[in-house]
Amino acid sequence: MKNYPAGLVLVFLILLSCTESNQHQKESILPKTEQIESFKIIDLSHDYSKETIYWVTAKQFELDTVYMGETEQGFYYSANNFSTAEHGGTHIDAPIHFAKGGQTVDEIPLEKLIGPAIKIDVSEKAIQDVDYLIGIEDFVNWEAQQQMTIPEGSIVLLQTGHSTYYPLKEKYLGTDQRGAEAIALLHFPGLSAEAASWLVEKRNINAIGIDTPSIDYGQSQDFKSHVILLSKNIPAFENLTHLDQLPNKDFEVIALPMKIKGGSGAPLRIVAMLKE
Amino acid sequence: MKNYPAGLVLVFLILLSCTESNQHQKESILPKTEQIESFKIIDLSHDYSKETIYWVTAKQFELDTVYMGETEQGFYYSANNFSTAEHGGTHIDAPIHFAKGGQTVDEIPLEKLIGPAIKIDVSEKAIQDVDYLIGIEDFVNWEAQQQMTIPEGSIVLLQTGHSTYYPLKEKYLGTDQRGAEAIALLHFPGLSAEAASWLVEKRNINAIGIDTPSIDYGQSQDFKSHVILLSKNIPAFENLTHLDQLPNKDFEVIALPMKIKGGSGAPLRIVAMLKE
Repeated sequence: MKNYPAGLVLVFLILLSCTESNQHQKESILPKTEQIESFKIIDLSHDYSKETIYWVTAKQFELDTVYMGETEQGFYYSANNFSTAEHGGTHIDAPIHFAKGGQTVDEIPLEKLIGPAIKIDVSEKAIQDVDYLIGIEDFVNWEAQQQMTIPEGSIVLLQTGHSTYYPLKEKYLGTDQRGAEAIALLHFPGLSAEAASWLVEKRNINAIGIDTPSIDYGQSQDFKSHVILLSKNIPAFENLTHLDQLPNKDFEVIALPMKIKGGSGAPLRIVAMLKE
Repeated sequence: MKNYPAGLVLVFLILLSCTESNQHQKESILPKTEQIESFKIIDLSHDYSKETIYWVTAKQFELDTVYMGETEQGFYYSANNFSTAEHGGTHIDAPIHFAKGGQTVDEIPLEKLIGPAIKIDVSEKAIQDVDYLIGIEDFVNWEAQQQMTIPEGSIVLLQTGHSTYYPLKEKYLGTDQRGAEAIALLHFPGLSAEAASWLVEKRNINAIGIDTPSIDYGQSQDFKSHVILLSKNIPAFENLTHLDQLPNKDFEVIALPMKIKGGSGAPLRIVAMLKE
């Protein structure tokens, strides 16, 4: 029962019951143990700790122990406070992060954050070239290989392979220095402005995610891909991990941010549900 | 397409295709617009703001603007920092909150947080009695009415109706005072220790949630229901809302906490998926 994601299990089991054993629907709708175990949930989120990676100018994560241990009343108790920038670790960029008047994080419709997803794997090129810009060609190639256009309403995940460097700042960000002077030293792959425009104009996606610190590449100065996507209310998920465990299509993503009223972004817990 | 929770839609549509139109499976598996619109996602989370309700001794939520407005480079930008106690607003209690050596919030298996759910509505009694203790009888009555035992692996949500008072502290907590002296003034319903033991010993649930500040009632001094549940690795969701929009069964819950390494709890985004 370890890998039991109820909704998806049902989807596939009922599909099976439709296609394979029509004669005995009522019995075959009941999940069998060996079928349940062939589904799983994958956590695409880094955790928050002292090692969590933030933008070189952003406030980092701090956890302060309020209490830990036995109490006078005889029970054990532990609790902490924490502080953080909205944009650090695995987080979401709400439209208002780069679009005046755009949706704040609490205003993003949940329907954009839960649903079918695809993955574009550019890791072969992006591991060779730390400044790699994911281009229109990468999307066109995916569509040719999968023999389909990017489905309407998809959540699109971009795999550069750079999450394997996390949390080594020098490798993942391009620098372990901090402060405004470190900005010029940032090197990691991202989405080109042309490809962001293509997605917005030619396809109809719900959200986008990447396994680097930012949807714009490290050397960006105008953050055009942010502006293009967020202006169209397409939220961006950054600092994802475990994208290598996902297929190119046929899985679902559930991305639930902390509900900060008026927030420009927030810590994000994001998972994928798939058939093994 | 507004209310599109992919997994659940598929579950029900495929069920429909099995039970109603066996002869044309392939066609009927494709969702029809009018069917898609009959499913929805309900947000069971309060947002985080200055009004967010915390325990009377806990650090409250603070949001600090880092930047908001046009930049020299010509684009709009906004970003904030925030600080909070782990346990405030809609949040999760990880086992280690009251159980020494228990799971921290990052260690809770996702399979406990995503899955089929039920609701026990005690609001009629709990609105009359601010110190109402949800008892074994309430669970037994639910089972008699639903003609079933609480299913194995359920997420159990307890509706007291007190979320309608949120964020009025005097009504919701029993006091608008803060500090150690205010603890004795706390009045709100919760789960009795006997009922917590019954759930742990007689049923096999994955998680529990309530629309009050705590799974133990306001006048509790020993937090026994916390200790009983968390010692068995059953996480608790507190300060839920919109439980009145849920049926008594046949829905799913997705509860994704911020992944704080070593955390005793965390802000939680929790949603329900159901057929309208």
